[in-house]
Amino acid sequence: MSKVLFSGAMIVPVDESRPGFFTGDILVEGGLISKISEFPERITTETEVKVIDAGRLILMPGMVNTHGHAAMVLFRGYADDLPLKEWLEQKIWPVEAKLTSEDIYWGTLLSIVEMLKGGTTTFADMYFYMDQVAQAVGESGIRAVLCRGLIGVGENSATSLQEGEQFYRDWHGRGAGRINVTLGPHAPYTCPPEFLKKVIIAADRLHLPLQIHLSETAGEVEACRQEYGCSPIVLMERLGLFEQKVIAAHCVHLDDEDIQIMARRQVRVAHNPGSNLKLGSGVAPVAKLLAAGVTVGLGTDGAASNNNLDMFEEMRLAALLAKGINRDPTLIPADKALRMATVDGAAALFLEKTGQLKEGFRADMIGISRELPHAVPLHDLPAHLLYSAGAADVRLVMVDGEMILEKGELLYLDEEKIKAEAAARAAKLTGRSET
Amino acid sequence: MSKVLFSGAMIVPVDESRPGFFTGDILVEGGLISKISEFPERITTETEVKVIDAGRLILMPGMVNTHGHAAMVLFRGYADDLPLKEWLEQKIWPVEAKLTSEDIYWGTLLSIVEMLKGGTTTFADMYFYMDQVAQAVGESGIRAVLCRGLIGVGENSATSLQEGEQFYRDWHGRGAGRINVTLGPHAPYTCPPEFLKKVIIAADRLHLPLQIHLSETAGEVEACRQEYGCSPIVLMERLGLFEQKVIAAHCVHLDDEDIQIMARRQVRVAHNPGSNLKLGSGVAPVAKLLAAGVTVGLGTDGAASNNNLDMFEEMRLAALLAKGINRDPTLIPADKALRMATVDGAAALFLEKTGQLKEGFRADMIGISRELPHAVPLHDLPAHLLYSAGAADVRLVMVDGEMILEKGELLYLDEEKIKAEAAARAAKLTGRSET
Repeated sequence: MSKVLFSGAMIVPVDESRPGFFTGDILVEGGLISKISEFPERITTETEVKVIDAGRLILMPGMVNTHGHAAMVLFRGYADDLPLKEWLEQKIWPVEAKLTSEDIYWGTLLSIVEMLKGGTTTFADMYFYMDQVAQAVGESGIRAVLCRGLIGVGENSATSLQEGEQFYRDWHGRGAGRINVTLGPHAPYTCPPEFLKKVIIAADRLHLPLQIHLSETAGEVEACRQEYGCSPIVLMERLGLFEQKVIAAHCVHLDDEDIQIMARRQVRVAHNPGSNLKLGSGVAPVAKLLAAGVTVGLGTDGAASNNNLDMFEEMRLAALLAKGINRDPTLIPADKALRMATVDGAAALFLEKTGQLKEGFRADMIGISRELPHAVPLHDLPAHLLYSAGAADVRLVMVDGEMILEKGELLYLDEEKIKAEAAARAAKLTGRSET
Repeated sequence: MSKVLFSGAMIVPVDESRPGFFTGDILVEGGLISKISEFPERITTETEVKVIDAGRLILMPGMVNTHGHAAMVLFRGYADDLPLKEWLEQKIWPVEAKLTSEDIYWGTLLSIVEMLKGGTTTFADMYFYMDQVAQAVGESGIRAVLCRGLIGVGENSATSLQEGEQFYRDWHGRGAGRINVTLGPHAPYTCPPEFLKKVIIAADRLHLPLQIHLSETAGEVEACRQEYGCSPIVLMERLGLFEQKVIAAHCVHLDDEDIQIMARRQVRVAHNPGSNLKLGSGVAPVAKLLAAGVTVGLGTDGAASNNNLDMFEEMRLAALLAKGINRDPTLIPADKALRMATVDGAAALFLEKTGQLKEGFRADMIGISRELPHAVPLHDLPAHLLYSAGAADVRLVMVDGEMILEKGELLYLDEEKIKAEAAARAAKLTGRSET
């Protein structure tokens, strides 16, 4: 594994013990950040090292996308501005049913290209044909937290849990540790209590976190109350789900009791503001969750309901929505928003030593141009990254100490081939000729 | 004026009579779109013409930014995440008081660079030292609707209206018609009724529209009710302001009576979703305004409260907020959001034949790359432009039939010099060394 010295960068460490930014050097060895200096102190090294002049870059931790369905990028722009039921039942499910394992492979690769180019170094994924997803992650160099989506109704419910466990045995820890596997019960409304109990037993036995959709829409919460007499959060608490490590996606419709339970049980939240707005689900009570001490990461959800995989956009939306909805401009200030998009996201996915530029942490970092018109003047770097910068400003990406993207170009993935393959497959799936 | 043929583009005309998109050619002559063809029909021309192969571009009308304070870009990132009162009184006003006319010139140029590169071809501006703003507009080739901000209290209130009128006489119609001047009474809370009456008389005499801030914050509406016993909208109605052409910025806090008045009086709204969220002002009732038949354009506001001048972001925010807040994903669909950002914005600014790709309209248009990862697959062009594309995707900009930007580079402005000058001036104004 190569040794790399980033020389003379502006560094936004996204570290509560070191707020704001400073100018300095960063040394990376063995996949880890081994040393950080602040000017006038410099890092000198006697062994062979690749030196990167980072004088025109802002270095920050890579973005952590805590919730999504990568291969759904194939359905980007296929169906928009529709009522949720019509969108799902008449548009998305029929084309999803046609997906092959090869489609999933190329779709996932396309989403990885977009995420890496936009500064995301870790993503969570819940979908199917997960062997192909893991294959794409392995080839691309990105970090991921993967699970087979489990549906607990219908004839395949028993085998889906077995497949989820098998996927863990086959892939967890591969890609030099970049591939992490969890279990993935889809949601309370697709996984009845008896099924969830089996999933909980498996998670407990394998010491695996769980990814699950919870309380995304008002309708789903209402249906749960009708059927079980309580909210989905209370139902999960009663079933013992929260005795496991849980990454709960969405959590838009919560009452105070729900939030108290989540805080007490240390449930991690994947907040997807763009998708929740676009589908008309609403706005998650993020300020309340944060005040209660809940760890909240950010996610894009699948590109069919976003329609891009831009974590800068989600970060900005999360901060702006909290301020605007609560009429309080001091909520989620820049330092906090950056933490949500990076280290809090890593914590939400139960990843250790990830998401900060700090000695001993995983060398997952990105370099942002500071030469664009919207980066002038640069009064405050965290504010710039939150309010003005964007995915298109990313010039350099390193994951696990390996350079993946330099000068805006991917080093290992064949972007043109991936775009062409994915476009052709999307056209075939949807029956629309590529425009 | 040159004659240009765009050959083989994907065209999103943003025209209700022609929804969606098609592939075709566009001929531009004398500053106007003279002909549009749809394949297989092609445009042939016998006279000399510059042919641009637009086969890899999506052509759409340029964005119209209906509200802002361009030179405030110098205070981008200077003060964020603060309560509104502290932000204004302790941070923004003290640095604004130090602005020189040269600062305004360079700050405005920087904002024009950012706007043009991001696909904005028209912007509205309310500030001071407006001669320098008009100068910058003239040199840059962009289209603008400018006004001197008028404050009706203090010793300069009488002269400010005279200066506003003089600015009209000096600049209206210059820049080959690209410079449009209106009057600009700042807001009801800075312009007492007696002053507003004088402004109304002047607007009536000169047949000029008015730009004004209305009902931006709950506190301002409450203070108006305390002082005048009615909302700012009702107060303006009583004063006769709405008998003039009015561009009302913000309009966040409106009741049903306000909306009825605005619809009846054909008040135009400049909706600034990003700024309203960031300052904690709230979310304007855009869906209600649209349902009442009010023309709503979009704006960035100044970069001190945004912090960029990206109209794609404002367009996406406007659509997402309407859907999410009202829990209805069918509100502001892609075609409508695109209209708000272009032709409705032009109408909000009382500009004619602007904001659509249509024969006889002003040739203000932009070309968007369709070769980026987030443009794959391209199932639906309006949805792509609204939900996935961004300012960084702009490759070509034409204003009034003149090419301003090609292959992402500005043809007439010296971007590096402008960034350096603006950065140095910002550092001097704020007392912070350029980072």
